[in-house]
Amino acid sequence: MIDNGGNRKLDRHVSLNLNVRGMPESATLTINERSKALEHEGREIYRLGLGQSPFPVPREVVKALKLYAKEKDYLPVKGLRQLRGAVAKFHRDKDQVNAQPECVLVGPGSKELMFLLQLVFYGEIVVPTPCWVSYVPQARMLGKQIRLIPTSYEDKWRVTPELLLRHCECENDVYRPRILVLNYPGNPEGGTYTPDELKALADIAERFELIVLSDEIYGQLHFKGEHVSIARFYPDRTIISSGLSKWCGAGGWRLGTFTFPQELSWLMDAMASAASETYTSVSAPIQYAAVRAFRGGITIERYLCHARRILSTLGGWCHKQLSGAGIRLHAPEGAFYLFLDFSPFAARFAARGITDGEEMCERLLAETGVALLPGSAFERPPEELTARLAYVDFDGSAALAASEMVPLDESLPESFIETWCHRVITATRLIVEWISGEDKGGEE
Amino acid sequence: MIDNGGNRKLDRHVSLNLNVRGMPESATLTINERSKALEHEGREIYRLGLGQSPFPVPREVVKALKLYAKEKDYLPVKGLRQLRGAVAKFHRDKDQVNAQPECVLVGPGSKELMFLLQLVFYGEIVVPTPCWVSYVPQARMLGKQIRLIPTSYEDKWRVTPELLLRHCECENDVYRPRILVLNYPGNPEGGTYTPDELKALADIAERFELIVLSDEIYGQLHFKGEHVSIARFYPDRTIISSGLSKWCGAGGWRLGTFTFPQELSWLMDAMASAASETYTSVSAPIQYAAVRAFRGGITIERYLCHARRILSTLGGWCHKQLSGAGIRLHAPEGAFYLFLDFSPFAARFAARGITDGEEMCERLLAETGVALLPGSAFERPPEELTARLAYVDFDGSAALAASEMVPLDESLPESFIETWCHRVITATRLIVEWISGEDKGGEE
Repeated sequence: MIDNGGNRKLDRHVSLNLNVRGMPESATLTINERSKALEHEGREIYRLGLGQSPFPVPREVVKALKLYAKEKDYLPVKGLRQLRGAVAKFHRDKDQVNAQPECVLVGPGSKELMFLLQLVFYGEIVVPTPCWVSYVPQARMLGKQIRLIPTSYEDKWRVTPELLLRHCECENDVYRPRILVLNYPGNPEGGTYTPDELKALADIAERFELIVLSDEIYGQLHFKGEHVSIARFYPDRTIISSGLSKWCGAGGWRLGTFTFPQELSWLMDAMASAASETYTSVSAPIQYAAVRAFRGGITIERYLCHARRILSTLGGWCHKQLSGAGIRLHAPEGAFYLFLDFSPFAARFAARGITDGEEMCERLLAETGVALLPGSAFERPPEELTARLAYVDFDGSAALAASEMVPLDESLPESFIETWCHRVITATRLIVEWISGEDKGGEE
Repeated sequence: MIDNGGNRKLDRHVSLNLNVRGMPESATLTINERSKALEHEGREIYRLGLGQSPFPVPREVVKALKLYAKEKDYLPVKGLRQLRGAVAKFHRDKDQVNAQPECVLVGPGSKELMFLLQLVFYGEIVVPTPCWVSYVPQARMLGKQIRLIPTSYEDKWRVTPELLLRHCECENDVYRPRILVLNYPGNPEGGTYTPDELKALADIAERFELIVLSDEIYGQLHFKGEHVSIARFYPDRTIISSGLSKWCGAGGWRLGTFTFPQELSWLMDAMASAASETYTSVSAPIQYAAVRAFRGGITIERYLCHARRILSTLGGWCHKQLSGAGIRLHAPEGAFYLFLDFSPFAARFAARGITDGEEMCERLLAETGVALLPGSAFERPPEELTARLAYVDFDGSAALAASEMVPLDESLPESFIETWCHRVITATRLIVEWISGEDKGGEE
């Protein structure tokens, strides 16, 4: 809604839903389009803003898309039968949960499914923050109640059983219908929960009859391949959200999945009705290809092992550099994010005229070319000096190919990431230099 | 929401938005899934319910999808730059309107775009009936005002300037924000407007400052290739809706487009914001392939000429048989539908216990295996004995190949459709027999 100059002459006939009016485009997509625009102006931009997997779609999955390119029929609303079966089996095998094909719903991205869930569910959505950028704008668009549970650096930016309990208890009406959204390995902080933490959260969820939307889209990018789903401890009311975007490198393909317990089939059916009046069904060739992805197998497992090794090596290196420089952050456990807390530099930043997270990111981008997303995009307070770093600005195809030369039981040497992920390395060094306060004044 | 027995035990914890609760799946998709289920039971079903193009996706478009199968990046929310350019040029060339690339919005089906339009627009949606099945359920899901203008058989089921004028004038507040939805060639009646009729409608739209959503998804299936858009007469406030589903045979691919005038960019921008929080962008490989489709060229034009010739021959034959049998209907001018009015048989039907359109279609399906959709699905009164027939149950690939053997300046002989579209022929004959009242009692 806002042009490059920051404002826009509005047509006098504008007639828009007030829930939508003035709403900007999704923050992650905006930073992506903005970085591209700056690049077109000839600036060197380090794109650590958008959280897109750097890796290619596995070869056999691309091959499957070619094989099924002719498929043109409208597929069933809930998804292709074989795909629903493959997704259910994927969760049975990977997560040891009793997922059934008839309880899988396929959509054009888990974001769209989350939107439909918010549309059809009558009740509150409860989200610990920092959280993924779209939960709250979706609620706002629909004029819905959303309740945030702010977490802290000390708690590794994760909701603790104590926080959840306090939130649930402080309501006068403790049995109001609620969906708790958990996302782990997490965006924006790259952390996850231990099985014990999940058990403790499940106990509280059970006590208050919460439905849990367990956003596990990064599950296969747990660095040790040891992702555990809360559905194991709370099977009857947990929806597992997954999709091709992250572990399969196919964000642009747009395919997400929700896997429901039998007990919540009423919710899935209502979402399917809404789906039939909106997106109809997911693109047929993409669904056929996704069957191949979810069926997995040895080559896809190897692809995942290499991706995890590269990400954990790179994430670990960034963590070491940034924490060494005095930024507060935790060692990543999965996904491809770090959530940086620059509060130790608050006084120094204030002297440079930086008093909030958005200004901080703006100045960092302008002065170094490094694009991060401010904490406010993840529902943190605007004045908080936090930002998400997505360490994905490297050629994932080249890095994968190089990793294949190093036996999987070995660690990658530091020279590996310096060679194959040099843009992330440079960007990290630029951040470290920048916080030291050497203001270069304008474009580097 | 309804199981095969017609009811369902509801979980006591059901907590659903009342705008959605009890909402069935889209009528067209339901008839499709139901027909499939009956077929699995071994019944011979003539699928004239779902309006899916019988033709394959043109070879060069499938080839393009294979070529771009590796594309995995999130594309811009509004659509791939080249695709927006190709769509704009398509409308400039085909419709002689001044469409610009920056005014094109790409979505996962025009149904999804229509939904987002209803979500973001503050104002009434005005729809002549019979109308496409999803406009009204979408409004209901969003708790929105929708105003219907019932048309009649005598007016060829089309809104006349007089009807529109009467509708607009009878409001106390004539300048309330409104979007008029026009669909031509039309679903469910296969008719269209003449340029003079469009001019007259445009005059009234201008007088009341209506926005027109001109649903021209069947534009390229005008039997004579002479589709005219109302945007020619009302350029400043007409949105043209199109997509790959009908003329390109790619319904299951899910790609629709809205092309806005510059004056309505505020509406497009609000839709793009909503899109960024819902579907994000359309599947990347599909968008790259769609560029090829919209760029067109001689082979795609030939494909369209053959498709039109087959459809007009078959539609004409069905019209002749059905009107000869006493059913009221108009000769089709485009798309692949006929809207049948069985009211001359009301007395005879009543004697057989059939008193509304839904019962009529149920009985027809049970007694002959022919699936039609009742007029109520298109917002006609339930007691009206109307139904839509989609003459698409034939092998479009085989029919196209056979048509290519007959020079394009010749008509197809009746033997052509008897050979290549025999299921539609048989189904039409079954309908004619069935109305004669020879009740066979149960399965044929």
